[in-house]
Amino acid sequence: MPSGLPLSVDAMGGDHAPNIVIEGAAIAYRKQPQRSFLFFGDEKKIGPLLDAHPGLKAASTIVHTDEFVPGNEKPSLALRRGKNTSMRLAIEAVKDGKASGVVSAGNTGAFMAMSKMIFKTLPGITRPAIAGIMPNVHHDVVMLDLGANVYSDAQELCEFALMGDAYARAVLGIEKPKIGLLNIGSEDMKGHEEVRGAANILREASNLLNFIGFVEGDDITNGEVDVVVTDGFSGNIALKSSEGVAMFFYRQLRTAMESSWAGKLAYLIAKPAFKQLRIKVDPRRYNGAMFLGLNGIAVKSHGGADGKAFANAIKVAYELIGANVNEKISQELNRLAPLMVTGVEHLFADIDHSEFANT
Amino acid sequence: MPSGLPLSVDAMGGDHAPNIVIEGAAIAYRKQPQRSFLFFGDEKKIGPLLDAHPGLKAASTIVHTDEFVPGNEKPSLALRRGKNTSMRLAIEAVKDGKASGVVSAGNTGAFMAMSKMIFKTLPGITRPAIAGIMPNVHHDVVMLDLGANVYSDAQELCEFALMGDAYARAVLGIEKPKIGLLNIGSEDMKGHEEVRGAANILREASNLLNFIGFVEGDDITNGEVDVVVTDGFSGNIALKSSEGVAMFFYRQLRTAMESSWAGKLAYLIAKPAFKQLRIKVDPRRYNGAMFLGLNGIAVKSHGGADGKAFANAIKVAYELIGANVNEKISQELNRLAPLMVTGVEHLFADIDHSEFANT
Repeated sequence: MPSGLPLSVDAMGGDHAPNIVIEGAAIAYRKQPQRSFLFFGDEKKIGPLLDAHPGLKAASTIVHTDEFVPGNEKPSLALRRGKNTSMRLAIEAVKDGKASGVVSAGNTGAFMAMSKMIFKTLPGITRPAIAGIMPNVHHDVVMLDLGANVYSDAQELCEFALMGDAYARAVLGIEKPKIGLLNIGSEDMKGHEEVRGAANILREASNLLNFIGFVEGDDITNGEVDVVVTDGFSGNIALKSSEGVAMFFYRQLRTAMESSWAGKLAYLIAKPAFKQLRIKVDPRRYNGAMFLGLNGIAVKSHGGADGKAFANAIKVAYELIGANVNEKISQELNRLAPLMVTGVEHLFADIDHSEFANT
Repeated sequence: MPSGLPLSVDAMGGDHAPNIVIEGAAIAYRKQPQRSFLFFGDEKKIGPLLDAHPGLKAASTIVHTDEFVPGNEKPSLALRRGKNTSMRLAIEAVKDGKASGVVSAGNTGAFMAMSKMIFKTLPGITRPAIAGIMPNVHHDVVMLDLGANVYSDAQELCEFALMGDAYARAVLGIEKPKIGLLNIGSEDMKGHEEVRGAANILREASNLLNFIGFVEGDDITNGEVDVVVTDGFSGNIALKSSEGVAMFFYRQLRTAMESSWAGKLAYLIAKPAFKQLRIKVDPRRYNGAMFLGLNGIAVKSHGGADGKAFANAIKVAYELIGANVNEKISQELNRLAPLMVTGVEHLFADIDHSEFANT
């Protein structure tokens, strides 16, 4: 059930703002014309773009500001001097109850830092994480963290696991999500201390969570897993590597089809099949990552997103709002309270530190 | 120039050994019939398989042993009690001057631990790394470490950089390989201490190495980089994620083509184009990862390799042997000695630890 409040949008974030932002909103609006929007940014730029979409224009309010967060600005600097930026004002509108959630394609670090400062973390959560959806042969998979944290200890990985669990239940509608810890081997002895420690905790909580153990990189797309839990460094690398390969593959396919008359003819004959493939593997369909663990809904779009991709980030935001994802996470935190107060130290006792690093 | 010595092969390693091992050797032998092989393993199983390939049989010697390293055995255990295993004997044959290099599809951790113990590391190298080849839109890319080490400090990452440099020069024939450090953002302020520390060292060595800075996951396949340097945890996850997406994409393509008459017709018409695509993206073409930094050539095949993939691992081994890759690494270590003795600590001075983790 969508909220009646408008969605708050940082119209100045991303490589092609505000054009693709308005274009994306127009696409999203055409699909769900009951939506409304609060755009933060330069009125002189946003206004004329909205004129091209009268329906969207009627459902939109522009809040003018000259300032925006540059794409490469340090988050600490953006926090200090970014009080009147489109990003900051867009987040505050949610905090002030004027909007149901916020979407930005701007500087990820600044967006996370500001969201964390303004929304605060949910009770019981140490660190927020960035969660996204990846395609899998069976269904969609939730993966987190995608880059909010470069280091994560065992306890934090467990928090990611339960936030991912709540996300998969609330948004993907999976009753008992299968949770896997990303590692470099499926045997228990592999991996570094943090993942082995997290596995020990999650294994003890098998009555609370459906923890299936370690998964490897290829299980993200080919495995029997619904939630892939990892630290932000590995998660970001897995995500970007996957996007790179998808783009590489698609380009190779196009080259193969364009390099001969037979290929061109085949393409014409099977255009719907190629289109179906494109839809299935198009990274734009997966654009829109949520900052999980905050007391407010913030969705990050790729900085290089086009209108179609930005429209998907808006769709993700509305799904999260409609699913009351943060309420579900809070309920999940209560349900899993026994897991979160477990002392971590004694669980490390059975890890043999003398073992080879790569075993 | 290939060595006249035979290649040492662990015939019992991998999920489908010894069948795919002999099948792979037969494929490799057909392409280069001047090669010879030393197979270690169960004579009763290897013998009948060789009978099917008289040419290969004439170029092969079987060294019988009943023992082999189980795929899930802890490396420490394999080291202690694996003295008569096919893997151990195959490695020792190289050490004893009876073979030019060794190939195994067996237990990665055990193969690395045994190779390290028997070959020893090259002078100046702290930790060996696993290096492999990945496809890129421009050319092939060397990536390391792919899983030998779960943690790597700044100095170790720099050692990987120079080993990767030597590999790219010796095997890929690139004069000044462009070296990138895998990170979660291209701005200098991003990433964790280890990668930022390594970047500081490598930047100071710009007269010795062509360091291009940080690269992200999608640069592996789409970027302007020849050598991608990372720790074994992230590297393994990047590799496996990429393989997963490639398989996913290929299956989706097949499904799209098979799900309609138009698709089937298109496939028939453009079969050569599809075949060309398959060859370009087939992970088997990239099978065969080298243990870099050891005083001996050891190549690891995927455990699940088929004959064609195993043949590629043999090809990789012969390329490395022919290129004298270890001699080149030693020369590179001498050339880069100034880099390796640089104190690391003072280079950390300019890192702002108070900065947000994800900035």
